[in-house]
Amino acid sequence: MNFRSDNVAGADPAIMAALTEANAGSASPYGDDPWTRRLTERVAEVFEIKAAVFPVATGSAANALALSVLTRPYGAVYCHDDSHINTDECGAPELFTGGAKLIPLTGVGAKVAPDILDAALAKAKPGFVHRVQPAVVSLTQATEAGRVYRPDEVAAVCAVARRHGLAVHMDGARFANAVVRLGCTPADLTWRAGVDVLCLGATKNGTWCAEAVIFFDPARAADFAYRRKRGGHLLSKMRFISAQLDAYLENDHWLTLARHANAMADRLAAGLIDLVDGAALADPVEANEVFIRLPQTLTQRLLDAGVGFYPWDGEVVRLVTCFATTDAEVDEFLDLVRRVC
Amino acid sequence: MNFRSDNVAGADPAIMAALTEANAGSASPYGDDPWTRRLTERVAEVFEIKAAVFPVATGSAANALALSVLTRPYGAVYCHDDSHINTDECGAPELFTGGAKLIPLTGVGAKVAPDILDAALAKAKPGFVHRVQPAVVSLTQATEAGRVYRPDEVAAVCAVARRHGLAVHMDGARFANAVVRLGCTPADLTWRAGVDVLCLGATKNGTWCAEAVIFFDPARAADFAYRRKRGGHLLSKMRFISAQLDAYLENDHWLTLARHANAMADRLAAGLIDLVDGAALADPVEANEVFIRLPQTLTQRLLDAGVGFYPWDGEVVRLVTCFATTDAEVDEFLDLVRRVC
Amino acid sequence: MNFRSDNVAGADPAIMAALTEANAGSASPYGDDPWTRRLTERVAEVFEIKAAVFPVATGSAANALALSVLTRPYGAVYCHDDSHINTDECGAPELFTGGAKLIPLTGVGAKVAPDILDAALAKAKPGFVHRVQPAVVSLTQATEAGRVYRPDEVAAVCAVARRHGLAVHMDGARFANAVVRLGCTPADLTWRAGVDVLCLGATKNGTWCAEAVIFFDPARAADFAYRRKRGGHLLSKMRFISAQLDAYLENDHWLTLARHANAMADRLAAGLIDLVDGAALADPVEANEVFIRLPQTLTQRLLDAGVGFYPWDGEVVRLVTCFATTDAEVDEFLDLVRRVC
Amino acid sequence: MNFRSDNVAGADPAIMAALTEANAGSASPYGDDPWTRRLTERVAEVFEIKAAVFPVATGSAANALALSVLTRPYGAVYCHDDSHINTDECGAPELFTGGAKLIPLTGVGAKVAPDILDAALAKAKPGFVHRVQPAVVSLTQATEAGRVYRPDEVAAVCAVARRHGLAVHMDGARFANAVVRLGCTPADLTWRAGVDVLCLGATKNGTWCAEAVIFFDPARAADFAYRRKRGGHLLSKMRFISAQLDAYLENDHWLTLARHANAMADRLAAGLIDLVDGAALADPVEANEVFIRLPQTLTQRLLDAGVGFYPWDGEVVRLVTCFATTDAEVDEFLDLVRRVC
Repeated sequence: MNFRSDNVAGADPAIMAALTEANAGSASPYGDDPWTRRLTERVAEVFEIKAAVFPVATGSAANALALSVLTRPYGAVYCHDDSHINTDECGAPELFTGGAKLIPLTGVGAKVAPDILDAALAKAKPGFVHRVQPAVVSLTQATEAGRVYRPDEVAAVCAVARRHGLAVHMDGARFANAVVRLGCTPADLTWRAGVDVLCLGATKNGTWCAEAVIFFDPARAADFAYRRKRGGHLLSKMRFISAQLDAYLENDHWLTLARHANAMADRLAAGLIDLVDGAALADPVEANEVFIRLPQTLTQRLLDAGVGFYPWDGEVVRLVTCFATTDAEVDEFLDLVRRVC
Repeated sequence: MNFRSDNVAGADPAIMAALTEANAGSASPYGDDPWTRRLTERVAEVFEIKAAVFPVATGSAANALALSVLTRPYGAVYCHDDSHINTDECGAPELFTGGAKLIPLTGVGAKVAPDILDAALAKAKPGFVHRVQPAVVSLTQATEAGRVYRPDEVAAVCAVARRHGLAVHMDGARFANAVVRLGCTPADLTWRAGVDVLCLGATKNGTWCAEAVIFFDPARAADFAYRRKRGGHLLSKMRFISAQLDAYLENDHWLTLARHANAMADRLAAGLIDLVDGAALADPVEANEVFIRLPQTLTQRLLDAGVGFYPWDGEVVRLVTCFATTDAEVDEFLDLVRRVC
Repeated sequence: MNFRSDNVAGADPAIMAALTEANAGSASPYGDDPWTRRLTERVAEVFEIKAAVFPVATGSAANALALSVLTRPYGAVYCHDDSHINTDECGAPELFTGGAKLIPLTGVGAKVAPDILDAALAKAKPGFVHRVQPAVVSLTQATEAGRVYRPDEVAAVCAVARRHGLAVHMDGARFANAVVRLGCTPADLTWRAGVDVLCLGATKNGTWCAEAVIFFDPARAADFAYRRKRGGHLLSKMRFISAQLDAYLENDHWLTLARHANAMADRLAAGLIDLVDGAALADPVEANEVFIRLPQTLTQRLLDAGVGFYPWDGEVVRLVTCFATTDAEVDEFLDLVRRVC
Repeated sequence: MNFRSDNVAGADPAIMAALTEANAGSASPYGDDPWTRRLTERVAEVFEIKAAVFPVATGSAANALALSVLTRPYGAVYCHDDSHINTDECGAPELFTGGAKLIPLTGVGAKVAPDILDAALAKAKPGFVHRVQPAVVSLTQATEAGRVYRPDEVAAVCAVARRHGLAVHMDGARFANAVVRLGCTPADLTWRAGVDVLCLGATKNGTWCAEAVIFFDPARAADFAYRRKRGGHLLSKMRFISAQLDAYLENDHWLTLARHANAMADRLAAGLIDLVDGAALADPVEANEVFIRLPQTLTQRLLDAGVGFYPWDGEVVRLVTCFATTDAEVDEFLDLVRRVC
């Protein structure tokens, strides 16, 4: 029973099958191959727009490289204080942007709130050479608190960004989980709402190591390819990443995987609330993460029993499900909770 | 018939099998997994030393991250003018080191020659604040001209480096090819000769995307882990890279693969010299690359016939073989040459 | 009547005289001159310690270069949210450190408070590769709110820093103003309290362009000289900066200048409080800046009358005095206030 | 007798007088002052064009900041191997550009030769993501060998640059010396010949610390101001730099100073050739530097006698004159040579 993170699983069988299939014959390196071309087509279909698509191997690379295209070194990137780019990438955005500044914002549910963003931008001084210049706002979908932005919420943030001349970046490490929860289209949740660049995650949701940086306006992507290479993120045998992403997007497989992960999270949460006196969600379960307040004795006994999960903040613990989480695993866990309580 | 590069193949079947096997159950992310631990043990056996080992996905990342640990931003990295770090990584070393300077050296066979290095260092001014400070010398094994450094040649360069206080980095993108050609031990070719850090390539020789940065003195690796993460090069599902490297090193599989690639290059070269009047090697074939002078009409006809290879410099063309090159492919190529001539 | 900033004045006559005197004959460049040597001796006397002293031309350069020596690129610099390094240097610290992260802290009077620092550091994760690593805490003396840290307050912050392994940087743009207000020794306010590096300001207090970066432990300054040159901050005719600093520190001239500036601020504040109904200090006047709440109609009339000062935050205005502010200027201003009210 | 460099002198009396004059009353900081405005007008007159002008304190800052505007981090700057930016700025261009690559070129007299540049660019690969992208060519006027480019020579280099889409940067540390030697207009030697940005030196030719970065097309200067601030190179009391440059350019004073320096160099060279058997110029004297082959016994005796100059390369020594060098000093030196010989 491992609910530590959605990166403790390996790859989904369909992804492995795609890799095996991709391993036939020779192909031109660095993305000049059929898998990468097919990926671009598939992104066009899924997102209903002709976008520039760049596969990379990690989410930190995707985010940092995307930001490096959107801001000058003296720019400011507005983001939630708890966002992955601000807290868990060891300064990757700073490295790749040449030292741009992340401006941390507060906000419920780890969300960037339009009014808080607006207030922060009101303190910025465009054209004032002493201060870094507002350049980007970055949203995380789903957020670090497992919450999702609805299309209108994304649009509201983008409207503030537009008014101040900022580009909008979306860290979509758990984008699929948001899409299936909201039941909206990928386009509605991104470019139609005003997002310029999406880092579409796949690693947490079924691939080995595959993320796609998607510029909805290809003209903005002009120097991404150089920055990717310069960052050591251009894989020679690119088909290997592209094939993962191909299989991921094919036939809505990514949504199927995310739907399962979300369902497992729902089941986990419902079970805990049902079984444990005083259990209370710290945040509503909107993706595949459960943030729940549990009695500390229970938490300790579960950890002692070898269940994998993280105590988070005070009495709140975090439990993460993923595409590979099984009903049996959840049931086993809830059985254990029942016995321990 | 594709002799363009050793990155046009996919992965060796043994690597794919290892990946499939690694895809069972959950594992801790970021390298805290059995595959990564096993890899460190295997490197210890193969190189006869307890080293710090860091898997990454690309050779450019391996090189640039390794260099970033060995030099300050105001340092100088001495390397051959034609070296991959100097010409084919779009400035990755400059990015990761924070702007260190690569000092290009001439040298036959794309090798760093001890006397040329010594002369260049004589012009450096240690302690002179106006000038970047000598920090590293970087060797490529095999070189960009397909040549290999013998252990005594490595040692001679390292001796000059030591005398001037420089660290020694080896870009081992084709290290396996050098080892099997020379018939020496990996240890003799690296740390016993004075190399501090080896970037052990595997991608060109059978894996999908796997390189290992090996610090022979683990004490020197202190901040590598932070730099790898910050560079976006810490894969969450690390077992996936480590499993490739495990299978690569297991039972000398890497050497078997390289031996085959070298044999194919030898066969290609011998066949061309035998068949083509005026064909002459531009460099001796010491690894898996053939640099050969061919009549331009022949070159053109081969290209027209769809054979994949690169015209290199004047009449010289480059043909690269790899682990996946078959005898049949070489024979087919030589048949074509015979027909065309 | 110009109270906009302490950089609207030129240079103090004693500084000009020193420059004229320094302009005799030839001298070795880059700091190998008698003025620079004398400066190091003078700093030793004034601070009662043999320190490494590096003159530079601007405060932003002093701060950013000092920080670049104290942190790796993946480090974190804790500072007040309003500090100059965080808000008014257009990302200079990020540039020179190679992308280190400034962690903004709240705190009354723009001061770093030991408990708030401690709480922030409790959230840091030393050794956790995903997060930037705590490296430095930076204090501003006097603060952006015109407040001063007493020696025991500095010591309290330094104690927290020490416990977490952080270096302590002091931005002393208005250090002289703090020293004369507190009546303590420069040593008590810096290294005896635990400060590692002081950027001693002089430009705001009488020189044209001269700041001294002082490493109280010269062993920590090892690579400063390279970074200063690499930053374009090594003046060839260094004597010109050093002579300013020499004259600044000679015979406590710097303290005389600061004492005057502080007195002018006191007088301004007292006058306003006396004259204006509802005038109230937003912060106590502890250096040479007055932050005072004034009726907006008064503020507007003063601005209309051509008085130079900045509306700051809501009804609060900022008035800054300096070494060159005259009693007459203050009186003239207060007369105007009297007439306008 | 100090012929070590043109930075061993202080400031010219006219510059000191201008500083004294500038030190009256208050002025807005950061360049919003009459001196800086006047400087822009003066540059417009002297160069016959409305340019964007940015004063900074050092030549390394001027060059590195200018280059940072002209190239992306993955760009290449073509320059002579011996150029100051390549050898004597401790990597400042690399720092400010975010890691751009300097491509060193050979060339007689430390000049960039059009054909050598063209050949180097022929090896570049525009659009090839693996290689840094050609962005700038940098000329030094006068060169590190004391040679000057004639307007047609500048134009020839610029023509090659234009053809390949490169911007042209001129390091004009000794620009005045070139102008007076050639007897041409500043415009002919720069923008009319195709130069985009000139770093106009003044420090070596009479000021304390003042250089002007001049963008002949102000539209290209868009982000210079941010980069200057971020580099710590925006002086608060800017009038102090601008006043130096004002006085420098006023009434052709800069040319008068340079004419004198050149004349002193001529006299030194002629004297040595006349007096010393076997003395031979290594390079023609075209600015204010004499590179001359002298018998080593003579060189040693002169050094022993306390004359300041640098042995350069083999038997060649370098003697530098400047605005402050007197006839008497030269005569005294030649007398000494006569006695020693």
